[in-house]
Amino acid sequence: MVSSDFVIGVDLGGTKIYTALANKEGEILAEVKILTEANDGPEHVIRRIVETVNEVLKLSGFSGQPGCLGIGAPGPLDPRRGFVYQAPNLGWRDVPLKQLLEEALHMPVVVGNDANLAALGEHVFGAFRGVDDMIYVTVSTGIGGGLILGGKLYLGAGFGAGEIGHMTVEPDGPVCSCGNRGCLEALASGTAMAKRARQLVEAGSGRGIFMLAGGAMENITARVVSRAAAGGDEEALGILAGAGRALGIGLACVINLLNPSLVLLGGGAMQAGRPLWQAMTEELNKRAIRSTLQQVQVIPATLGPRSGLLGAVALAIGKG
Amino acid sequence: MVSSDFVIGVDLGGTKIYTALANKEGEILAEVKILTEANDGPEHVIRRIVETVNEVLKLSGFSGQPGCLGIGAPGPLDPRRGFVYQAPNLGWRDVPLKQLLEEALHMPVVVGNDANLAALGEHVFGAFRGVDDMIYVTVSTGIGGGLILGGKLYLGAGFGAGEIGHMTVEPDGPVCSCGNRGCLEALASGTAMAKRARQLVEAGSGRGIFMLAGGAMENITARVVSRAAAGGDEEALGILAGAGRALGIGLACVINLLNPSLVLLGGGAMQAGRPLWQAMTEELNKRAIRSTLQQVQVIPATLGPRSGLLGAVALAIGKG
Repeated sequence: MVSSDFVIGVDLGGTKIYTALANKEGEILAEVKILTEANDGPEHVIRRIVETVNEVLKLSGFSGQPGCLGIGAPGPLDPRRGFVYQAPNLGWRDVPLKQLLEEALHMPVVVGNDANLAALGEHVFGAFRGVDDMIYVTVSTGIGGGLILGGKLYLGAGFGAGEIGHMTVEPDGPVCSCGNRGCLEALASGTAMAKRARQLVEAGSGRGIFMLAGGAMENITARVVSRAAAGGDEEALGILAGAGRALGIGLACVINLLNPSLVLLGGGAMQAGRPLWQAMTEELNKRAIRSTLQQVQVIPATLGPRSGLLGAVALAIGKG
Repeated sequence: MVSSDFVIGVDLGGTKIYTALANKEGEILAEVKILTEANDGPEHVIRRIVETVNEVLKLSGFSGQPGCLGIGAPGPLDPRRGFVYQAPNLGWRDVPLKQLLEEALHMPVVVGNDANLAALGEHVFGAFRGVDDMIYVTVSTGIGGGLILGGKLYLGAGFGAGEIGHMTVEPDGPVCSCGNRGCLEALASGTAMAKRARQLVEAGSGRGIFMLAGGAMENITARVVSRAAAGGDEEALGILAGAGRALGIGLACVINLLNPSLVLLGGGAMQAGRPLWQAMTEELNKRAIRSTLQQVQVIPATLGPRSGLLGAVALAIGKG
């Protein structure tokens, strides 16, 4: 039997596939997380997703057919057609994700951009659910965002809205993966922090960070930088402060432009903690318009690693 | 008789009051423009507005009572209550504009922020009317903006959205009137261009500009800079290019964030013409995400000095 009271949510990432069976209240009945194995191509990834779907159904003892599957994928993509134009993390180009999954699963499939769905997840199921004007920003390998405006996910004219990571915050800053200079992502993402640390080591400093990385350049990550900072390492603290300042400038721009009442920050790099948060807040306080700043709360996202997954669930139950 | 087929629109500026009687198609039956005389206080300005209303009624030979009056005023303001918190251009603080006008005119009054109404005017009556996702930017003494998102004027959580002029485009740039550094307004407004020119003259260069200003520092305006540039003056061209670059950076941020299909540029300073436009476009092409850029047209506003006035008309006929 098909039961639209239960849906599948999938968070498809470059590294992992995270799948759950949930009810309409966003309560998860069963969840699994497996490696994406993106290197083996889209067909393989589709098979992996199907595996996770079967697995959560088995785990939950659910004998029916869920009403819908919602999936968040890296973009750019066309959410209406469920067509992924390009997903560098997955090595995908022009993959008809919706069609492939519907054929494999015999179930309606709805597709969304991962950062947009994380915003939607927080909007529908987060601790601050229901706030009409909310910006979600994820700071991890890259920096992405999703906009809830007037109570709805705002996608823009071509489903491309929310690219906070590619706002310029320092016109002559470091080169970004997109080719431009001084994008927020090039200054404040986990990748940017790790890169900055490696540059310090290459230049003969950054000893504390290098030691924490076991003396191996390739082990220098944003997490290592954060740990060094937590131990009081001045250079690591400087890196986090730089990233925080860039985030503060970018967020001030977004806040001045959109006057939201809530900004939620998610993603692994936001775990960097106090030094980053402090520098960000300082810059934000300087640059956001006073009245606008008084109307906004800037706080950590409330669903942690489940924002995207629960956004996919929200999409599947028709809250997109 | 009260006829809701006709409304009054008012564009209230620091220098001029611009008032029209219009029908529901936005056709203007009569219009007048008089000096605001803001120095004489809010009551005087209210009387001046009432004068213009009586004047357009007389000029048009309209014998009835218009259905509503829409007015655009500088902000920050609360459009619902029609309450102006602060309008430095007018020297106003806490003026209950709606209430004062309703008492004086015995007519329903609706109030909006001037830049927001200019966006609305273009959206409802401009050559590109009806485009769902549109950003309007006015570059004149200051830089303001209005956002049409999902086919509606987007006001934000506290009616403060659209402050494009106070997005940071150069973190260590010149100090803005708001107190921050490197706001778009501090780099690309008419005021900023004139200030830059004066600095050049003070530093012993900018001779061509100084001559065109009749050798008087106080006569150096953005218009003079534009004229000097049109005559090939290298320093004036440099000023326009600098402003254009800053505009390009700011617009790229807005476009990457909101993925609009239309950006309209209005205001006197946009008359600076080709050198500014060219530098802006170059920067925009560099910094906007390719797919997003392909979906957007960046063009001059189509209603010229009437954008705000027709926005007030649109508000009065209930299209806000």
